[in-house]
Amino acid sequence: MPPAGELRDQSPSKNNNTQSSDTQSADAAAAAAAAISAAAADAEAAGLWTQIKAEARRDAEAEPALASYLYSTILSHSSLERSISFHLGNKLCSSTLLSTLLYDLFLNTFTSDPSLRNATVADLRAARVRDPACISFSHCLLNYKGFLAIQAHRVSHKLWTQTRKPLALALHSRISDVFAVDIHPAAKIGKGILLDHATGVVIGETAVIGNNVSILHHVTLGGTGKACGDRHPKIGDGCLIGAGATILGNVKIGAGAKVGAGSVVLIDVPPRGTAVGNPARLVGGKEKPTSLEEECPGESMDHTSFISEWSDYII
Amino acid sequence: MPPAGELRDQSPSKNNNTQSSDTQSADAAAAAAAAISAAAADAEAAGLWTQIKAEARRDAEAEPALASYLYSTILSHSSLERSISFHLGNKLCSSTLLSTLLYDLFLNTFTSDPSLRNATVADLRAARVRDPACISFSHCLLNYKGFLAIQAHRVSHKLWTQTRKPLALALHSRISDVFAVDIHPAAKIGKGILLDHATGVVIGETAVIGNNVSILHHVTLGGTGKACGDRHPKIGDGCLIGAGATILGNVKIGAGAKVGAGSVVLIDVPPRGTAVGNPARLVGGKEKPTSLEEECPGESMDHTSFISEWSDYII
Amino acid sequence: MPPAGELRDQSPSKNNNTQSSDTQSADAAAAAAAAISAAAADAEAAGLWTQIKAEARRDAEAEPALASYLYSTILSHSSLERSISFHLGNKLCSSTLLSTLLYDLFLNTFTSDPSLRNATVADLRAARVRDPACISFSHCLLNYKGFLAIQAHRVSHKLWTQTRKPLALALHSRISDVFAVDIHPAAKIGKGILLDHATGVVIGETAVIGNNVSILHHVTLGGTGKACGDRHPKIGDGCLIGAGATILGNVKIGAGAKVGAGSVVLIDVPPRGTAVGNPARLVGGKEKPTSLEEECPGESMDHTSFISEWSDYII
Amino acid sequence: MPPAGELRDQSPSKNNNTQSSDTQSADAAAAAAAAISAAAADAEAAGLWTQIKAEARRDAEAEPALASYLYSTILSHSSLERSISFHLGNKLCSSTLLSTLLYDLFLNTFTSDPSLRNATVADLRAARVRDPACISFSHCLLNYKGFLAIQAHRVSHKLWTQTRKPLALALHSRISDVFAVDIHPAAKIGKGILLDHATGVVIGETAVIGNNVSILHHVTLGGTGKACGDRHPKIGDGCLIGAGATILGNVKIGAGAKVGAGSVVLIDVPPRGTAVGNPARLVGGKEKPTSLEEECPGESMDHTSFISEWSDYII
Amino acid sequence: MPPAGELRDQSPSKNNNTQSSDTQSADAAAAAAAAISAAAADAEAAGLWTQIKAEARRDAEAEPALASYLYSTILSHSSLERSISFHLGNKLCSSTLLSTLLYDLFLNTFTSDPSLRNATVADLRAARVRDPACISFSHCLLNYKGFLAIQAHRVSHKLWTQTRKPLALALHSRISDVFAVDIHPAAKIGKGILLDHATGVVIGETAVIGNNVSILHHVTLGGTGKACGDRHPKIGDGCLIGAGATILGNVKIGAGAKVGAGSVVLIDVPPRGTAVGNPARLVGGKEKPTSLEEECPGESMDHTSFISEWSDYII
Amino acid sequence: MPPAGELRDQSPSKNNNTQSSDTQSADAAAAAAAAISAAAADAEAAGLWTQIKAEARRDAEAEPALASYLYSTILSHSSLERSISFHLGNKLCSSTLLSTLLYDLFLNTFTSDPSLRNATVADLRAARVRDPACISFSHCLLNYKGFLAIQAHRVSHKLWTQTRKPLALALHSRISDVFAVDIHPAAKIGKGILLDHATGVVIGETAVIGNNVSILHHVTLGGTGKACGDRHPKIGDGCLIGAGATILGNVKIGAGAKVGAGSVVLIDVPPRGTAVGNPARLVGGKEKPTSLEEECPGESMDHTSFISEWSDYII
Repeated sequence: MPPAGELRDQSPSKNNNTQSSDTQSADAAAAAAAAISAAAADAEAAGLWTQIKAEARRDAEAEPALASYLYSTILSHSSLERSISFHLGNKLCSSTLLSTLLYDLFLNTFTSDPSLRNATVADLRAARVRDPACISFSHCLLNYKGFLAIQAHRVSHKLWTQTRKPLALALHSRISDVFAVDIHPAAKIGKGILLDHATGVVIGETAVIGNNVSILHHVTLGGTGKACGDRHPKIGDGCLIGAGATILGNVKIGAGAKVGAGSVVLIDVPPRGTAVGNPARLVGGKEKPTSLEEECPGESMDHTSFISEWSDYII
Repeated sequence: MPPAGELRDQSPSKNNNTQSSDTQSADAAAAAAAAISAAAADAEAAGLWTQIKAEARRDAEAEPALASYLYSTILSHSSLERSISFHLGNKLCSSTLLSTLLYDLFLNTFTSDPSLRNATVADLRAARVRDPACISFSHCLLNYKGFLAIQAHRVSHKLWTQTRKPLALALHSRISDVFAVDIHPAAKIGKGILLDHATGVVIGETAVIGNNVSILHHVTLGGTGKACGDRHPKIGDGCLIGAGATILGNVKIGAGAKVGAGSVVLIDVPPRGTAVGNPARLVGGKEKPTSLEEECPGESMDHTSFISEWSDYII
Repeated sequence: MPPAGELRDQSPSKNNNTQSSDTQSADAAAAAAAAISAAAADAEAAGLWTQIKAEARRDAEAEPALASYLYSTILSHSSLERSISFHLGNKLCSSTLLSTLLYDLFLNTFTSDPSLRNATVADLRAARVRDPACISFSHCLLNYKGFLAIQAHRVSHKLWTQTRKPLALALHSRISDVFAVDIHPAAKIGKGILLDHATGVVIGETAVIGNNVSILHHVTLGGTGKACGDRHPKIGDGCLIGAGATILGNVKIGAGAKVGAGSVVLIDVPPRGTAVGNPARLVGGKEKPTSLEEECPGESMDHTSFISEWSDYII
Repeated sequence: MPPAGELRDQSPSKNNNTQSSDTQSADAAAAAAAAISAAAADAEAAGLWTQIKAEARRDAEAEPALASYLYSTILSHSSLERSISFHLGNKLCSSTLLSTLLYDLFLNTFTSDPSLRNATVADLRAARVRDPACISFSHCLLNYKGFLAIQAHRVSHKLWTQTRKPLALALHSRISDVFAVDIHPAAKIGKGILLDHATGVVIGETAVIGNNVSILHHVTLGGTGKACGDRHPKIGDGCLIGAGATILGNVKIGAGAKVGAGSVVLIDVPPRGTAVGNPARLVGGKEKPTSLEEECPGESMDHTSFISEWSDYII
Repeated sequence: MPPAGELRDQSPSKNNNTQSSDTQSADAAAAAAAAISAAAADAEAAGLWTQIKAEARRDAEAEPALASYLYSTILSHSSLERSISFHLGNKLCSSTLLSTLLYDLFLNTFTSDPSLRNATVADLRAARVRDPACISFSHCLLNYKGFLAIQAHRVSHKLWTQTRKPLALALHSRISDVFAVDIHPAAKIGKGILLDHATGVVIGETAVIGNNVSILHHVTLGGTGKACGDRHPKIGDGCLIGAGATILGNVKIGAGAKVGAGSVVLIDVPPRGTAVGNPARLVGGKEKPTSLEEECPGESMDHTSFISEWSDYII
Repeated sequence: MPPAGELRDQSPSKNNNTQSSDTQSADAAAAAAAAISAAAADAEAAGLWTQIKAEARRDAEAEPALASYLYSTILSHSSLERSISFHLGNKLCSSTLLSTLLYDLFLNTFTSDPSLRNATVADLRAARVRDPACISFSHCLLNYKGFLAIQAHRVSHKLWTQTRKPLALALHSRISDVFAVDIHPAAKIGKGILLDHATGVVIGETAVIGNNVSILHHVTLGGTGKACGDRHPKIGDGCLIGAGATILGNVKIGAGAKVGAGSVVLIDVPPRGTAVGNPARLVGGKEKPTSLEEECPGESMDHTSFISEWSDYII
């Protein structure tokens, strides 16, 4: 497969944040920029956290029955990281993996790596902007299993890269039990991700997902056999993967591409192409694929714009 | 979309109970009829509850290891509403949403609105009649996650209509976590509903489901993008939606229609029509769609009668 | 349907263990062989258990944060059966079905029937060999919801055959809640089974699954209506059923056959045949179906080898 | 019922507590008085509840870490009875006696008998007035194990009188486990009671305690052997029983009497008398007992006023 | 101190079972007698268990709200040992010592040593006969914290003698937390013991208690300093120790002696003597101690018969 | 009362650490000394922690059934503060005060004030040295309710001084429920404290306890009425207070004094004096009190050395 960079080069997304900045040459200018960027990220996170607390305070006042929940999960905490760590610790704990242990693990990991917090912020914005059913940031923070699964995955991925594999896998297992979202700790996932509804999502070990991608429930990014090695899909920036789509093997879904609901995709999809059906076909055909006009279907979330071209096939 | 009434007018179902009687003119005759109907509903619920307790008592005697479970969930309670409220409170609680709070919420809601209880009774009968694996009412009451998710949804829907949205959404989140059934609190659902197996069902915010509908697991009634407004399917009375079917957008599935397992439906299906495949086609073709002879596939649960016509396509 | 034996006779698998040895004539030679076989099985289980403990000890030393979990679930136990009983008891318990009750139930059942233990061993080996993401036996034992769901199912199946149906169904319900894996207690399942990822798997009451079968997540082995009786698929030895495949009705998937991801299968698939698509077609066509060269796709796990023949249809 | 004063005037009478007014002739005048009294009690309870909520709201604002606790126990409830029922249900529950069951039991009992609520109000006032360490009503409601144990006892006593003895005893056992306060369900206890610190208090089956009594921790009102029948102390109105005092047998502690800390009392103490020591002696001697000037030591809480007379004995 | 045997030789009790039979010469006659005795003990335990189940069944029928509790703790179990192990496992567990682990530990220990079961039977009978407030065996089994603490102590004592000291001490800690009964695992306790009310009982490391002893709450059998070695009281068979009595040091309380409530005893008490007061005096004086006429005050439970002689001192 | 300093000036203890160093003049020499002292304290704590981990590791290896407990409470933590915070959080949590919240509170408080950690170290050493039943530091850390109650008290005391009174009182309530140890958050307690057995200890709001004090179970340091203000005992350094002793009022127990078990003390006890009995008398009489030869009875723990002088009174 091409390096992750190639996928990203074609990305039509504007928020083209690279996933791993550690390979860049870090000259002085870059360092300065990074500092500015870090400060901006901190400010953005702080602003968002202020807004989340305001939402929660409003809801607590309007609904005393929920106030205890809102105080324990949001209003009693001093930062977004603490709130999420508390919430995930309580959701993912079991009788053999205690909430205090998980809380500690989440809090330490979030605190030690600000990029996780920045990704969280981007994910919250993604849900709020893209999902019309998302009525507030606090709603996403508390109730979206896809959002929560992604945040927990980021921690398990961090543990995986620190060669703390057994702990990463135990966490992976809890995420799969509790949220029915199964993301291998090794999978690399960008930011600004929306896992909408999320139940049944399966993402394999060597999968890579770019930034600003939207993935619906029941989507599989799966492998192709028992061979080891790089065997899972690479999803470019800005893609939209419809509900129940199954993408198998080390195939490349180009940046800004769209995969229709229920599609089964076994071969590459070009950037800004649309694949639909089982087996999936390119709308417009292999020879003259229709290139999407929209820049980023992962953000526009238009699931059915291809109907006009596809309607011949149905009903 | 057409008013809900239109969908229902075409309904072939015999138990054509309207979902929302509040639009009817309530003259004296209607009031008298309602009183009689209410009494009949109470009597039916009481009879069913007697039967459920008898089943549970029989099972408790035969299986002492289960007796504690049966007493705590059924035999210690004085009514069906109390039993369900207790069972849901204990299933849906978390460390931050206590069982006592949820129990109170369920019990108050069920008690304040008898139509919820009547719908519960119809759902219990639906499972008992339509699912050959359902060996008793108590089995459904205790163990069917689809049944339990629907009952909890009715409470969250009630809260939603009372503009207690944050509480409705918190409950929604717990239902999705615990049962892997994701029904937006705003979705309108009739009675006599069977969510068979239920895992992975997703029903969006503006979806409407008539009466006597059967929906298998992994079914999606999804939206089509990030635009707000009416954007989810309307399912007529008596429909049968097969496992894994994906229906997207504000499309109308006519009363008594059937959608095959794994189908992807993006356009209306006429009443008593059958849509199969990905993309879905009408059995008999768009021009001469074969109208189902059966009155109500949602009740007859015949998933594969269309094979004779569809078998050309397969194997 | 044909007797279970017929399915198995065509099995290409080498580990052709029969599912139910109780119908065999048990003459002296057979008894001797059984004794030898039992001793061998005991030795194999003991060896595997030793290895699992060694893995857990290594991980506990490397990762103190996980040591408590590893000791409570594995290292404090004297046998594989005790470890699994403890782990399942703690995972499947609820406020109304206590962990001690379930632990007792699991332990008594595993202890009373060594064939369950042998199947557990075969399943552990299946996951370890077939899933490249499975890095150790202990990883599978602790974290694979498919593995755990199958073991719990075997206990509920045993209870079912002992006519302890209400208890079997209560357990079934817990498995479906906790793992999102819904296997009816009456379903007969062989050994050496891999339920990979497992979320959303539904297996109906009269389904039969041979040995050495691999089934991906979201697979449905469903019924075809509300008629009672034998109404679910029979899966031969060594089959591979891809993610999201839906197989409905009392159809026979021949030994060594392969069903592609997302396929909808309503008719028999011949041994070593490959069915793909919705509606499913036989690769090579009905007249000249391509027979797989591989002996046992359930073991080789090659999900996409048919692409070369199928690629015309896609993209 | 006669005014409390009457009791006290006649005290130390045998069991002359007016605790159960149901045997009195309820003529019209009495009924009217009762109605007025009931309305006054309701108003007092409502006022107190308003104050408790105000206290809790103030504390929640000042201390976000505690807000979740305050909302769940106080601020989310619509009445004092609901708040106490919730709090006791959560404190006294166990893995085999669920919080929902206990909550239901408490709420039903409190609701069905307003005299329990009135006694609760009197107890709250008693703690607030008599204990300088009690800084608010909400502090007592949430944190005083003596107060909570008494309220739970009143429910278990009610169950006992309804011949629901096994349930009363199960509750008794939970109170003793959780609060280390052991009050037999049959014991009759007045109102305006302060169990200060409360750990280790033991009150036997046939004990009777009047109104406005203060009892410190480790106090025993015990029996004298294995004979059945009336065998425990009777404590008159307004008594003060010091820490660690042991009173054994069917002895009478007259109204307004005081028992010193650590005393062992086996014989009657006259009204307004003071008994101290082990074995206890009357201050002033048997012949000329010093009568307390204070009317109600149970309210004045003066533990050591007798030192001047007793000091000869010590140090 | 004298050998335990000496204390027992003076025992007035009829059920003079020796505590540790392992020092006896086990010739053939003894073996035969032991077999007969074992069979008799089994029969007695079986009879008692039958009665307990009958009591629980009666209560479950009369009180559905309690039935779940009664089934889970008693009626679902096949033996007294299993019932107690389950009940203790659930009562003593914590988030770091799981109920399944404790259940296993209790069950294995009770099963491996029948003498524990025999002691349990004797304790149940002791409570039923001596405590007029004990209305049934099942009441004691479920609700008497003194009874439960003793049974759990016997297991911790067994672990201590097997040099599993850390586990014994962890169990000891849980007993002290949950029941407020603090018995060092090394303390040797006979059978037919009643710890009435039990809160606050403290029994030190080298204490020895004979058979048929009754001990009230707040009793201390304490040491005398920080020196190691034999430093705690030895309580002979049939003694009665009143509430709040404090006995310190390696003193001997002779068989059939009585210690009054609240007494502080620092010197030996002769067999059948009565010590009362702080500091304790012998009733009748050191020179002419009054010997109790009753054979076994631990069984007759007469706490105050000495009043006639002691009354001069009081009031 | 005299300033705390006065009590301490008479202290016979060698480890005469002052309780509150904040009133001292902090000149440069003192600052240097403090830095050296802080470094020494850190080193001592680190050494003790190393020893505790070694003990726990040895126990985990010897007793696999306990290993999970030992890893979760001790071996998985990086410091003594973390271990205690985790252990207390899990012990003191309830359904309305979550373990994660308490863990956070404990950890933040311990981390922000090193003097708490130093006091913990002194308490561990006190238990290990003075209690012959304390076989290891880890035994005390995990299992001594008196030790744990004191540590939790120190945190609640810190909160109290920060005017976080409601939170301090909620914690106080949990300590009293869980450990049956009732220490008002305002009470000032030195270090090197042993609360042996601890059940039933009650320490009032204005009590002050010096350093190196040993207090047995059931001890009361109580007030004398409902007047506010300074009303509880002041216990000098090095005192020993025997089991069940009751000390009431703003009295001073001089440094190095001893109060016998079961004593009731209402008047000052001179330094190194011994008070015994109810009412308490000075051994040797008020005129010629026998001064103890031992420097620090709180450390020597000799409970009964006064018997020779007191034995006239008894038996």
